[in-house]
Amino acid sequence: MNFSKDTKILIIGLGVIGGSYAAGLSRKGYNVSAITKEQKDIDYALERNMIRYGTTVNEEKLIKSSELIIFALYPTVFIEWIKENQHLFGKGTLITDVTGVKTGVVEEIQSILREDVEYISAHPMAGREQSGIEFSNPDVFIGANYIVTPTEKNTCEAIAVCKKLGEILGFARIEELTPKSHDEMIAFLSQLTHCIAVCLMNCNSTQGLEKFTGDSFRDLTRIAKINDKMWSELFLMNKGALLDSMDSFIAEFSSFRNMLENGEREAMREKMRNSTARRSLFDRPSKK
Amino acid sequence: MNFSKDTKILIIGLGVIGGSYAAGLSRKGYNVSAITKEQKDIDYALERNMIRYGTTVNEEKLIKSSELIIFALYPTVFIEWIKENQHLFGKGTLITDVTGVKTGVVEEIQSILREDVEYISAHPMAGREQSGIEFSNPDVFIGANYIVTPTEKNTCEAIAVCKKLGEILGFARIEELTPKSHDEMIAFLSQLTHCIAVCLMNCNSTQGLEKFTGDSFRDLTRIAKINDKMWSELFLMNKGALLDSMDSFIAEFSSFRNMLENGEREAMREKMRNSTARRSLFDRPSKK
Repeated sequence: MNFSKDTKILIIGLGVIGGSYAAGLSRKGYNVSAITKEQKDIDYALERNMIRYGTTVNEEKLIKSSELIIFALYPTVFIEWIKENQHLFGKGTLITDVTGVKTGVVEEIQSILREDVEYISAHPMAGREQSGIEFSNPDVFIGANYIVTPTEKNTCEAIAVCKKLGEILGFARIEELTPKSHDEMIAFLSQLTHCIAVCLMNCNSTQGLEKFTGDSFRDLTRIAKINDKMWSELFLMNKGALLDSMDSFIAEFSSFRNMLENGEREAMREKMRNSTARRSLFDRPSKK
Repeated sequence: MNFSKDTKILIIGLGVIGGSYAAGLSRKGYNVSAITKEQKDIDYALERNMIRYGTTVNEEKLIKSSELIIFALYPTVFIEWIKENQHLFGKGTLITDVTGVKTGVVEEIQSILREDVEYISAHPMAGREQSGIEFSNPDVFIGANYIVTPTEKNTCEAIAVCKKLGEILGFARIEELTPKSHDEMIAFLSQLTHCIAVCLMNCNSTQGLEKFTGDSFRDLTRIAKINDKMWSELFLMNKGALLDSMDSFIAEFSSFRNMLENGEREAMREKMRNSTARRSLFDRPSKK
């Protein structure tokens, strides 16, 4: 596949991420169509020139003619959709996705997929608390990270197209990981943080606390506004790696708690100096 | 005391917070002097019109003529400073501070203070990760919360002046709390969040993780860059309340962990819906 502005791109699912992909690709002049459940989301996208064509039906002609299909719905729906619709794909179609967990997705889809099409999985590491196309915004990708998770079933050509997609959308870092490494990484960097935010928000129900809050509490709980359906699904799909991350965090936190109880000032200060030094590595590249 | 633009204000300590107070008051036309340790910080402040006068010495004439003294150094230094210098205060001087913990500070200082001066404690809930006057910025106060913690020793007049100070600096919410309630609140809203950030940053030392991070991890660890001397002091001063908050969090987090292990999807979703609803209360007023 030669990826160019004429390439026929089809996005399945105009939610917050699918919508952001559509807007980001269209504003660069790419040829984007979409299939999504609700006509109102298609109307929204058409009015804003996010897509050239949209439909609520799995139209054979549209799917067959699409060269790059980007799947932007829930992972469980993804597998079903492939089973039900893959007979409609044209030969050589490239399929990618935005799925946040790769275990139970990449291998499964690659194992059921027609031999004459290819699926290369990717994860755009930029999200929003809200769901729905009205919250989509292609600027969230600018400067963010984009992970491609190839397997031995993938061709170099497909990996290159998938990376090109990340470049067009403006991601700052485009990296490759195995699906397993991706899931371990995501368990720590993304899922654990969401667990912490939810629990921090839920562990104190004192009335009126919001009158006194500062920005640190707001920052730590921003993602406590969470799409419960999607995140519970992602957590359960990645249970093993997420439990490992949660247990590491509990061990570290309990140890710090005990330092406080025992008045171990120097040990606490050492932990703080460590965290200060390590956090510097995680600054956004643009701020360096 | 009639608080006006002619009121002689003296700031003790031109660090990041003292400097921000100086800049915020001076840009509104108030009359600000400062005493701080380093001449370079005075030069910095004078060059930027943050103060009208500054010295590294506890000058009797300056202290005696000051009507409102704002103490912006570490709490332990605060008590010592009062002991050593209170003979220099003019009659009727009002003293306030920016101290983040009130236990071990407010009562102690009020008990040793001369009878003809008054100390009314306050806490501006806005900080920076960095320390030093070069990071001071009065805009961090705009829209933030400001807590006054009066005791029965305080007069209505002093409380009013202290609140006026918060207004001038641009705080959006100005509230009163007892020192004890303040410390319980701060244990949860500020200290617990800093403990979490430090431990999250320290609980995984995998190399190269920063290549893959998204904004949620960055948000949760922003405050893992921490002034170890100041925060260890604040934690230890507020040990009881902070341990309570840490234990509540551990209990909530462990419970959520077990839901995941047991595959209790509905219970997890319920927790997420709770956190989503409760987090809405904590949005910045301007965003509502």
